[in-house]
Amino acid sequence: MFDTTEEDPRSPEEVERELAVRGGLAASTRDLVDAVIRSTVDDPELIAVREEIDRLVARLRVSQMEGSFGVNRAGSGDVRAQGNAVIGLRNAIAPPLVITQEPEGRAWSDFHLGAAYEGPPGLVHGGVSALILDQLAGEAAAAGGAPGMTGTLTLRYRRGTPLGDLHGEAWIEKVEGYKTTVKGHLKDAEGVTVEAEGLFILPRWAREQSQTPTRFE
Amino acid sequence: MFDTTEEDPRSPEEVERELAVRGGLAASTRDLVDAVIRSTVDDPELIAVREEIDRLVARLRVSQMEGSFGVNRAGSGDVRAQGNAVIGLRNAIAPPLVITQEPEGRAWSDFHLGAAYEGPPGLVHGGVSALILDQLAGEAAAAGGAPGMTGTLTLRYRRGTPLGDLHGEAWIEKVEGYKTTVKGHLKDAEGVTVEAEGLFILPRWAREQSQTPTRFE
Repeated sequence: MFDTTEEDPRSPEEVERELAVRGGLAASTRDLVDAVIRSTVDDPELIAVREEIDRLVARLRVSQMEGSFGVNRAGSGDVRAQGNAVIGLRNAIAPPLVITQEPEGRAWSDFHLGAAYEGPPGLVHGGVSALILDQLAGEAAAAGGAPGMTGTLTLRYRRGTPLGDLHGEAWIEKVEGYKTTVKGHLKDAEGVTVEAEGLFILPRWAREQSQTPTRFE
Repeated sequence: MFDTTEEDPRSPEEVERELAVRGGLAASTRDLVDAVIRSTVDDPELIAVREEIDRLVARLRVSQMEGSFGVNRAGSGDVRAQGNAVIGLRNAIAPPLVITQEPEGRAWSDFHLGAAYEGPPGLVHGGVSALILDQLAGEAAAAGGAPGMTGTLTLRYRRGTPLGDLHGEAWIEKVEGYKTTVKGHLKDAEGVTVEAEGLFILPRWAREQSQTPTRFE
């Protein structure tokens, strides 16, 4: 799980093509998720579309990995994260966030959340805000060289977060040995909507196994 | 937003049919999300499948609502929740959880999380656990007649939550005026993996508008 030193046997061109093809397929699937929620076409057409989707699923499942993506990719963290529920390029559940890590221990992203992320009408589901802030906080800890598994995470909801264009960021507040405290928030155009504070802990087995902290994604 | 008294003009048969057609379409889309992550078919086939998905999206978008689902459905909370990111029958991002509410202020669900909910390899994304516990906690508060918007939510991660069959529950710990404290947890077959504590607050405008607390979903 921590071995990020394994060589990726693919050429840069192969990696780029894989990202384009796989990322493109997931992007179209994301678009489908949105259309399924919002479509008002009649029932016979919905039923017909469903039958087509089932046929596409069968075509994709002609050959597939057992279980989840992460456990099938022992390669670099970048590849493994393609299945991640927040940043995964292959994962249509992920918005996906494109997160920038700053070496001083900060991570940020500008992103858009549509109908699929709704809780109260017109607002982002409070748990989706938690999901995104957990990812940003973990990446901030890793960016600063103090990675870990989430130990605790506290969300403070200042007001509803509207669906649409949003900004999220997180930063290391302090590092004490193998414990890293990270703070973060989500913002809309009017300002902060949700604040987060997380404690990230490098587990004992990881501390023993590796001198070089790596990212848990 | 709080008016749950509005009459639903549809017959029970119409409602049932809508759930079957809409729920079925979203279920197939969920299956597609999983297949897109796990498929190992070759690039030309992936590209061909993507083109088919794009055609289906166009068919669904021939007629669609503006914006998100919740803001387009002023009817009952049950209908509006069809777009919800955790429980929404129309929402392929939602597992979806089928949550049972107990009148003493408890909510629980048995559910399955597959590849789309992954964080660390083979494990549920910590933020997905937060997403689910937020929904369960809010429903527990509502079930006990003490609903509200999430004020704060704290997650304590005791160990990794494996992808697969899981159980989640939440219960009202105490009610003080318009503030409700809820606790909850997720469990796998071995026991508790994540604990949560949330504070739910009925906003002032809602307290003034309604004598009958209703559910924010």
